Amino acid sequence: MKELQERILKEGKVLEGNVLKVDGFLNHRMDPALMHRIGEEFAKAFQYENIDCILTIESSGIAPALCTGLAMGVPVIFAKKGKSANTDKDVYVSTVHSYTKNKDYEVTVSREYLLTVNRVLLIDDFLANGEAMNGLLNICKQAGVTVTGIGIVIEKGFQPGGRKLREAGYKVISLAKIGSMDHGIVFEESV
Amino acid sequence: MKELQERILKEGKVLEGNVLKVDGFLNHRMDPALMHRIGEEFAKAFQYENIDCILTIESSGIAPALCTGLAMGVPVIFAKKGKSANTDKDVYVSTVHSYTKNKDYEVTVSREYLLTVNRVLLIDDFLANGEAMNGLLNICKQAGVTVTGIGIVIEKGFQPGGRKLREAGYKVISLAKIGSMDHGIVFEESV
Repeated sequence: MKELQERILKEGKVLEGNVLKVDGFLNHRMDPALMHRIGEEFAKAFQYENIDCILTIESSGIAPALCTGLAMGVPVIFAKKGKSANTDKDVYVSTVHSYTKNKDYEVTVSREYLLTVNRVLLIDDFLANGEAMNGLLNICKQAGVTVTGIGIVIEKGFQPGGRKLREAGYKVISLAKIGSMDHGIVFEESV
Repeated sequence: MKELQERILKEGKVLEGNVLKVDGFLNHRMDPALMHRIGEEFAKAFQYENIDCILTIESSGIAPALCTGLAMGVPVIFAKKGKSANTDKDVYVSTVHSYTKNKDYEVTVSREYLLTVNRVLLIDDFLANGEAMNGLLNICKQAGVTVTGIGIVIEKGFQPGGRKLREAGYKVISLAKIGSMDHGIVFEESV
């Protein structure tokens, strides 16, 4: 997505530890019009997949997932982070390791909202090592839901998450895939 | 907002401790089309306020705030919860008490994104005691930003948050204001 790549080049900041800071338009301050076009891009990419629900993870996944849900006319569920007060009887739980914060956390989704779901699209803002995405995949597996695709706003192609998911057979579409950040940001083809 | 009231009556569940569970369409599973119309309602209610930014708080405020930002053509900032790794030099910090979880937490907003903001609209999904909203107001005060209005999806009118904010002179618009939940949900006029 050319517009997104241009925004990353213009406003993204590369920090120590392979951190790309894009919180000026994506995950702290958001540009709603850009987010809307991101949703339309995902809707186009997955239009033939008969998706009946979108699943993402709070907080930064909510905006792109919501806009995709709006464009596709399907509900959007966001998995919640942290210990749930609910029991396992009510929720699906999966443990996720955060490399950024170097700790584990739990993600939960209420069982009742996946009961009627058949074909789900997973959306997130970033894909690096794929830990958060694996947490969502694990929940889908527990629920017996088919994952028809994975839509990522920004993929760090030099980290292994995307490659592993594609090797596992998932259709992964990244709107901006970064090949390298060592000497300035260089993009590569998504698929 | 009649459509929202109908959804609350149809799908909302009243739990112990004055908890209204609406996570089937608002804050766990979301109905994007409803959220879009919520954004349009807020945009209409605050159309003459010359707003140049919307401020909300993660996670459940993000969706209604984003849709309002889309309808008004202004950026949306979401305050982050929890201890920030950033220093006070980089972020505004405010402490918020959660009655639901009976503990304090911090909300932070990067200073740089409020630098160019003059007139802000605050949006949140719920208003009960007003603690989260006071956290956002505190941050706006630190930043010297004018708060031109407060948009709430569901206000619990039997708790004091909304009354206090209106008495303090803020224009508070709630799309559904609940007067009582003791014997079924009863709505009252928002203003």
